[in-house]
Amino acid sequence: MKPTVYMEEMDAFTYRDKLAGDSVFFIPVGALEQHGSHMAMCVDAALTKTMAGETAKALEAATGGKVNGIVTAPINYGFRSQQRSGGGFHLTGTTSLRGTTLIALAHDIALSLMRQGARKIVLMNGHYENYQFAFEGMQLALEDARAEGINDAKIQLLSYWDFVDDATIEQLYPDGFTGWDLEHAGVMETSLMLLFFPELVDMDRMDPELYTGLPATLPNYDVLPIIPSYTPPSGCLSHPGESSREKGVILRDTAVANMVEAIKREFAWSYIR
Amino acid sequence: MKPTVYMEEMDAFTYRDKLAGDSVFFIPVGALEQHGSHMAMCVDAALTKTMAGETAKALEAATGGKVNGIVTAPINYGFRSQQRSGGGFHLTGTTSLRGTTLIALAHDIALSLMRQGARKIVLMNGHYENYQFAFEGMQLALEDARAEGINDAKIQLLSYWDFVDDATIEQLYPDGFTGWDLEHAGVMETSLMLLFFPELVDMDRMDPELYTGLPATLPNYDVLPIIPSYTPPSGCLSHPGESSREKGVILRDTAVANMVEAIKREFAWSYIR
Amino acid sequence: MKPTVYMEEMDAFTYRDKLAGDSVFFIPVGALEQHGSHMAMCVDAALTKTMAGETAKALEAATGGKVNGIVTAPINYGFRSQQRSGGGFHLTGTTSLRGTTLIALAHDIALSLMRQGARKIVLMNGHYENYQFAFEGMQLALEDARAEGINDAKIQLLSYWDFVDDATIEQLYPDGFTGWDLEHAGVMETSLMLLFFPELVDMDRMDPELYTGLPATLPNYDVLPIIPSYTPPSGCLSHPGESSREKGVILRDTAVANMVEAIKREFAWSYIR
Amino acid sequence: MKPTVYMEEMDAFTYRDKLAGDSVFFIPVGALEQHGSHMAMCVDAALTKTMAGETAKALEAATGGKVNGIVTAPINYGFRSQQRSGGGFHLTGTTSLRGTTLIALAHDIALSLMRQGARKIVLMNGHYENYQFAFEGMQLALEDARAEGINDAKIQLLSYWDFVDDATIEQLYPDGFTGWDLEHAGVMETSLMLLFFPELVDMDRMDPELYTGLPATLPNYDVLPIIPSYTPPSGCLSHPGESSREKGVILRDTAVANMVEAIKREFAWSYIR
Amino acid sequence: MKPTVYMEEMDAFTYRDKLAGDSVFFIPVGALEQHGSHMAMCVDAALTKTMAGETAKALEAATGGKVNGIVTAPINYGFRSQQRSGGGFHLTGTTSLRGTTLIALAHDIALSLMRQGARKIVLMNGHYENYQFAFEGMQLALEDARAEGINDAKIQLLSYWDFVDDATIEQLYPDGFTGWDLEHAGVMETSLMLLFFPELVDMDRMDPELYTGLPATLPNYDVLPIIPSYTPPSGCLSHPGESSREKGVILRDTAVANMVEAIKREFAWSYIR
Amino acid sequence: MKPTVYMEEMDAFTYRDKLAGDSVFFIPVGALEQHGSHMAMCVDAALTKTMAGETAKALEAATGGKVNGIVTAPINYGFRSQQRSGGGFHLTGTTSLRGTTLIALAHDIALSLMRQGARKIVLMNGHYENYQFAFEGMQLALEDARAEGINDAKIQLLSYWDFVDDATIEQLYPDGFTGWDLEHAGVMETSLMLLFFPELVDMDRMDPELYTGLPATLPNYDVLPIIPSYTPPSGCLSHPGESSREKGVILRDTAVANMVEAIKREFAWSYIR
Repeated sequence: MKPTVYMEEMDAFTYRDKLAGDSVFFIPVGALEQHGSHMAMCVDAALTKTMAGETAKALEAATGGKVNGIVTAPINYGFRSQQRSGGGFHLTGTTSLRGTTLIALAHDIALSLMRQGARKIVLMNGHYENYQFAFEGMQLALEDARAEGINDAKIQLLSYWDFVDDATIEQLYPDGFTGWDLEHAGVMETSLMLLFFPELVDMDRMDPELYTGLPATLPNYDVLPIIPSYTPPSGCLSHPGESSREKGVILRDTAVANMVEAIKREFAWSYIR
Repeated sequence: MKPTVYMEEMDAFTYRDKLAGDSVFFIPVGALEQHGSHMAMCVDAALTKTMAGETAKALEAATGGKVNGIVTAPINYGFRSQQRSGGGFHLTGTTSLRGTTLIALAHDIALSLMRQGARKIVLMNGHYENYQFAFEGMQLALEDARAEGINDAKIQLLSYWDFVDDATIEQLYPDGFTGWDLEHAGVMETSLMLLFFPELVDMDRMDPELYTGLPATLPNYDVLPIIPSYTPPSGCLSHPGESSREKGVILRDTAVANMVEAIKREFAWSYIR
Repeated sequence: MKPTVYMEEMDAFTYRDKLAGDSVFFIPVGALEQHGSHMAMCVDAALTKTMAGETAKALEAATGGKVNGIVTAPINYGFRSQQRSGGGFHLTGTTSLRGTTLIALAHDIALSLMRQGARKIVLMNGHYENYQFAFEGMQLALEDARAEGINDAKIQLLSYWDFVDDATIEQLYPDGFTGWDLEHAGVMETSLMLLFFPELVDMDRMDPELYTGLPATLPNYDVLPIIPSYTPPSGCLSHPGESSREKGVILRDTAVANMVEAIKREFAWSYIR
Repeated sequence: MKPTVYMEEMDAFTYRDKLAGDSVFFIPVGALEQHGSHMAMCVDAALTKTMAGETAKALEAATGGKVNGIVTAPINYGFRSQQRSGGGFHLTGTTSLRGTTLIALAHDIALSLMRQGARKIVLMNGHYENYQFAFEGMQLALEDARAEGINDAKIQLLSYWDFVDDATIEQLYPDGFTGWDLEHAGVMETSLMLLFFPELVDMDRMDPELYTGLPATLPNYDVLPIIPSYTPPSGCLSHPGESSREKGVILRDTAVANMVEAIKREFAWSYIR
Repeated sequence: MKPTVYMEEMDAFTYRDKLAGDSVFFIPVGALEQHGSHMAMCVDAALTKTMAGETAKALEAATGGKVNGIVTAPINYGFRSQQRSGGGFHLTGTTSLRGTTLIALAHDIALSLMRQGARKIVLMNGHYENYQFAFEGMQLALEDARAEGINDAKIQLLSYWDFVDDATIEQLYPDGFTGWDLEHAGVMETSLMLLFFPELVDMDRMDPELYTGLPATLPNYDVLPIIPSYTPPSGCLSHPGESSREKGVILRDTAVANMVEAIKREFAWSYIR
Repeated sequence: MKPTVYMEEMDAFTYRDKLAGDSVFFIPVGALEQHGSHMAMCVDAALTKTMAGETAKALEAATGGKVNGIVTAPINYGFRSQQRSGGGFHLTGTTSLRGTTLIALAHDIALSLMRQGARKIVLMNGHYENYQFAFEGMQLALEDARAEGINDAKIQLLSYWDFVDDATIEQLYPDGFTGWDLEHAGVMETSLMLLFFPELVDMDRMDPELYTGLPATLPNYDVLPIIPSYTPPSGCLSHPGESSREKGVILRDTAVANMVEAIKREFAWSYIR
């Protein structure tokens, strides 16, 4: 078996060796959700797992291998997609969890890791709607851990796109940036998919009749039951046409570098170079 | 994007086309669990997803393409590993869900699929301990679906190893078979991994000092808190030494063929050949 | 008893008369949370209830009294205050609910109203952290309502500050606006309190030694357990010094007018002028 | 800001000063419930909050200011009104929580207060049906607090009407007292509302055709679904006609004095006069 | 097998025959709780099951056998014993359920019975503290039943002691009656045990040193954590010394007759004599 | 009161004396479930309680009375009967709990016992479908107990039939044994009922038209909703015709002796003879 940052691909003994050293755990939280006709539905789970993997490797490199990065199995279902950030949970293909389920799932995974010895955890979110539920799950896990006498665990919670800085945004979106909410199936996600999973993207499947009304103009509120006509017909919220593998490289490099900095700041080891 | 049975790799529009036809959904339920030093920890999730995929493809073939097989994203965490079937949830690496969380997760996924139009669902289990919780989740999903007016959904629940027939068992275990419980990290799982994920198996990592006391002799009861000494030092419950890719082929072929028959019996289409 | 839009102040028979006509219900969701030394801790609950009341009255006026606005008793506790939007739930005075509790509370209130006959509901949020949990509660209430045969209910979910338009923001924040997140105990909330509850504000209680480091510069992630030093000593996230009753009037007028428009759009009655 | 016993009206710094001293917290638990045509629906929440406030002030006075009384934001929704004590949860206007929601809500508030430092808590109930659920919430909060190392908290649970003594009852109900159950919207609640919130009472709105069949003669059991004809048409369970502000004064004075005595007994400070 | 009213002692086919006719179901809800040194701990469960059985038989007799009385298996654990009605849940022997567990248990049993065809259900309570939780469970069961299309079920909820009328009380308690709350392990329960389960009572085991301070004088509030000294040393709340089998007969006869009348009133069949 | 191992029949003071010594607690978990036309529906609860009682007595005898066996009140409702082990929860008479309810019930009982001082607990299962939920309940109880500082409790979980050894099986089933799953209402349960509760068995009520298709041939999977035709018409899964009191004696003696050995192994006292 090859060296890997992915816990799923490690055997338990190798994993235990890593855990005996200094380790940072990454819990990727994604979704199974429609992303238009040009991309597969795993985008949120696949990208988050991969970005976590890239960040884990970069962290290992930045510490000369003194810190192990370990990416757990992803949470591959997410909270109900909302119309203003994912098109809506009424769309066929989008497969949703209740909020309480996501809270419980995040709670259990983090607590189980802490019971094994994990003390430095990064929850990386890749589906906008998940964040509050994942946050609550992490807090409940910490409360349980403390009741068991684990008092030194620390959890950092972030969404990877928040680490794309303004300069990069300006560079990648020369015609103006409409916000991360509307990036659902847009240039950021598509470019990263072109970089990591080109076989799951088909840039030719952007039928102009479908890929219209983009970026979406959505109200500044939600309505339930969802009003389907508010979502553009493609299910994308901004147009992915200007996506490219090159932009994916830039996005990855920027976000990963900034995430490594943020992780270093919170889990500061003296030997970090 | 290539044709696929995996929902995660489909775009939403292709998925909707499939759903408009006759489709059988497979929900794989696995675990993230130690499997000795010779295999990665994803075994239960990876094998179940793959066996579901193989069964989905075989079902499509058996119906001349008139039925679509769709494998959803796997549940990649499972219920607490028990000592008599998985070595125990105290073992580092084994990452466990509470029973209520697994019930909720299975419930939500099945209900969300039924709301999208799924009416024929196969829940495929690959981690012994999950079964009762997954069963309860399916029943709750059906009750909710009925309250929403969905009265024609049907769910088949199975564990893939139950479809390895006695003749095959005799052939593969010439020295006697000790039961599926003890097959944790044994010949069946290892052979299937050698077939599907050879890069996640290392047959040389079966240190005799570790791979001792196999097959495990475990009491006919459980104890909590777990008594670590009851579990063999490798974490395996039977010896995987006689595993081979060839046995993996036989196991896959037998189980898949028998599962296709069982699925046909329950979801009988006139045009099945 | 005087005419009122507040359900708490109506007798049941008057309420039933209103319900027999065309009515829009407002559910205010607030918090009990520290807001610096210059304001009382009820800000989120009190402002949201009052903004809902003002919107209810404006809606009645806009329809010539043909539509009744009814403001329910507020949810006066909120989800755990987060450091980036409320200073953090570690701060003494901030009294927090678990996510599951807030989901259940919002769920029960909306379902109970629908069982009484409410069909047009506006959930008005006034504590940033609540939104996702309130959203989930509303969806669960709708699912239950449908199972009981109530198929014509509609719920609009909004945060009142989202209805302050860009022109107003520019006018009120001449030195630049740092985002609604950082408005915790800042100019918006303080100005509205000066308008509605001047007795609960004391502009002289902004000790410069305490009211420093504003606007707060917070990381683009969360950490648990909370790191107290990240929160400015006052607990405010931006400086309220430039607040005034006049700004409160502008904020109220703008937000209320825009909310009335949004409510009209979603619950469009022919007789609306 | 004026001195106050109401936590909602305190700023966080003043509150922290109080908490640094000896403080008794009051959690008022009410309801939003029909109370006939002569009173507003907030009766249970408003009276309980006010009685808690009066008791807090009396406690401060009785200790020469050495003890701070702090009244938290009320729980302003209650458990399903029952026919024998509130007319029934089928009545329009009565807005009800599930039992599990009320348990969770009481649990969270008490736990959050204890985490802030509260050690002396009085849960004051004002809606008969709430009591058992509030009791359970308090016990769960204490269990969680103990798991966090908080071992010195104490909670007193009471309903304010239980502190009206027999002599007062005889004085106020010269024609005989039918029990607190039937006091729903009767003389006690109406007299206290006339004292504290006269603008929310209208003694002229007791239409004799409606205010008939009082005191209600209800069976010694409950029926579900509720049988509406068992509830008198007004929704009151006894006739409020003999209510007066003066009786309100007597009720308040008696109950508050007796509650102060009970609180002193349980939280006995040497400096209490 | 002999004819019986106890569902536990019926075979399924006999039960189905009964269910095909007109049947009233009784769900006894008890507790496992200390009852002094003179009685076994099953009192609440055993008496309630037996009183339900006696009532079922009396109902069959009163209808000339046209109505079947069916007593389900009892709920033999109850909610936490409270100090004012059961001595307190701190007492060794008293084995308690959380409120949410009791709600769920009552909910499931009633729903399962309704799914089988039960439409007339009497929930008979025998442990004071249970009532509100059992009530909530019944309401949730009815809501679920309705969502499944069961609209004609009716549930009567009662505590058997409420059917001992005033004349009987006067006769049995010549020295004055202190209320059902304090009857915990007192004359009523002991007399009924002497009638039904004399082998589980020992009237000689009332050590005067232990059976002192009776009837208990308890405060008009609860305290948590419980203050053990408030409970009399025996754990009884009133003295059982005057108990007798004869009083048991009177209690049974009165309560059963009155319950039969109440059940007839609610489930009125034309052929009841 | 006579000496007894049944907690329900002990008074609290006798119970406390036992608890002061060395005690093993037995929690029987059964069901209320159809068992054909020849047996009452209490089989699972009644047999498990009795087998626990027999084991408790045998344990007391084996230790010369130095260890007390205490059997708690049984859980007399179980998880939904499954078609492959109990005929299915669709069968009238079978009264089922949700999984979450059974988890909570087992959790509460075990935790309450541990809070009273119990440290050695045997959960004895008598309804196949319960096991996983009871296991989860025990684990949750232990986690809560540890958070309260109880670190020395131990729980053994077993199903009594697993202690019937192979030699006995061969003796009792000369024509071959089809597995414990199919023993639902078969020779084992019927023979034990003939031994312990002969009045609840009627060997003449095995109508050949009904008692056909036995042993049942069931698929190696479950289907939901249940397909009634898969269950034999009697509801039994194997034929009970060869049952006898004598076989009951053998089954009891074997299982009890083996359980005592297993309990001794786990709770090894030096004075065990």
